[in-house]
Amino acid sequence: MTKQELFEQIRKKKSFLCVGLDTDVKKIPKHLLRYEDPQFEFNREIVDATHGYVIAYKPNLAFYEAEGVKGWAAFEKTVKYIKETYPEIFVIADAKRGDILNTSSLYARAFFEILPCDAMTVAPYMGEDSVSPFLGYPGKWVVLLDLTSNKGSFNFQHMVNAATGKELYQEVLIQSQDWGSKENMMYVVGATQATKLADIRQIVPNHFLLVPGVGAQGGSLAEVAEYGMNADCGLIVNSSREIIYASEENFALEAAKVAYHKYQQPMESILREKGLI
Amino acid sequence: MTKQELFEQIRKKKSFLCVGLDTDVKKIPKHLLRYEDPQFEFNREIVDATHGYVIAYKPNLAFYEAEGVKGWAAFEKTVKYIKETYPEIFVIADAKRGDILNTSSLYARAFFEILPCDAMTVAPYMGEDSVSPFLGYPGKWVVLLDLTSNKGSFNFQHMVNAATGKELYQEVLIQSQDWGSKENMMYVVGATQATKLADIRQIVPNHFLLVPGVGAQGGSLAEVAEYGMNADCGLIVNSSREIIYASEENFALEAAKVAYHKYQQPMESILREKGLI
Repeated sequence: MTKQELFEQIRKKKSFLCVGLDTDVKKIPKHLLRYEDPQFEFNREIVDATHGYVIAYKPNLAFYEAEGVKGWAAFEKTVKYIKETYPEIFVIADAKRGDILNTSSLYARAFFEILPCDAMTVAPYMGEDSVSPFLGYPGKWVVLLDLTSNKGSFNFQHMVNAATGKELYQEVLIQSQDWGSKENMMYVVGATQATKLADIRQIVPNHFLLVPGVGAQGGSLAEVAEYGMNADCGLIVNSSREIIYASEENFALEAAKVAYHKYQQPMESILREKGLI
Repeated sequence: MTKQELFEQIRKKKSFLCVGLDTDVKKIPKHLLRYEDPQFEFNREIVDATHGYVIAYKPNLAFYEAEGVKGWAAFEKTVKYIKETYPEIFVIADAKRGDILNTSSLYARAFFEILPCDAMTVAPYMGEDSVSPFLGYPGKWVVLLDLTSNKGSFNFQHMVNAATGKELYQEVLIQSQDWGSKENMMYVVGATQATKLADIRQIVPNHFLLVPGVGAQGGSLAEVAEYGMNADCGLIVNSSREIIYASEENFALEAAKVAYHKYQQPMESILREKGLI
């Protein structure tokens, strides 16, 4: 999917919402456990109910790997179901991979050739050759971890480089721009550090940013839009638990309500205010 | 497995070799493809042939995920086979995971509860709360990426902290010592940067180090031992491709020969020289 196609979808749906499919079998409604593949069934119902308010889904691999082979099958079925049923929707495998070159190439094969994911999250610690194998697929994207939403982001990501005066997360932005382009690379910036978005936009004015941490983790949508939005929107805001676990009963309907009222509607207002729709 | 048990195994086998099970279905002998699970069959034969010279196996998840559900099943069968057949051998899931706390907890469940892995590799970029969920399992280990063997390690890992004068890989060693102990944390240090091992031993004199990059990637066993060995050996040296793809014909026998002649025998000499056996 190109950057332009992504922006067109945002304009059409008047939304820049991504729903995180953090599907924990211990948290899904009990009545789903009678299905052969409860994780997939949960996802399918969530996707069918919410797809009109959503431009992206982000299944997090941890929740599927925790179920072993069965979980991996549920992940595959989920990705294929979304891309076959709603091909315009952007699917991000939240895998946070990254390894030496020949190994990263295999992860790229797994997620971009065998599966039809549009993007995957990658960790930057091992540098360019751990990321570049993911960049060789036209229309596919790397979503590079940059400034994460968790407490541990303060351990290393704000470390100041003695040679340049830049913090590590800024170095990641600066250096990685030579690895890919704004057509195949985005960055993860946690909503809990929204005020940093202004600094980030100085370095990457035109790249898309994937912003988790709104909702359960406490980040603010208004702040994220204030500091992070650009002329192509440039934002994909993710919410997971708050939407998918909105209710035990009628979970899909309630998820759709939260997606609509708490995200799509405010997002539509913001996009109008900014003159993007 | 405790640190003491690991050292006892090193003394018993006179080896500190780990074999990386980077099992690529495109590279394994063609006659194995008639088996229902060729990756597992390859691993089983490699393990049966080499276990006497080896203290650890390290299946790399990328090679299994590249085969989807079938690959995940092969990974699970491999781990279970090793732990059931050779329970003294240390099994490292080379997964390079790391995510926000609730997600890392699920990865820990997948690899340490559902599967009997002894250790897994974890990336440090997201900091303490992305690593700590893996540390709550007695006898299980985190192998934290520190100074990797690839070219991209020079992108960020050597960045000097303006506040402390330490490089990022040193900061990772220093800070992470408060997260775990030498009984549940090791570090990845690539053999291609062996001279840095002396500096690393200043910071973590007693921790085990997992050292990839000997063999196909060009690192030297003698140098690694010279700069990295401590009183409990403190080293697990990994070789993958050079051993498992030693030959197309009689692959398991040839793998065992390489493991024996190129690794176990020199390792025995080194352990004797250092007075550890």
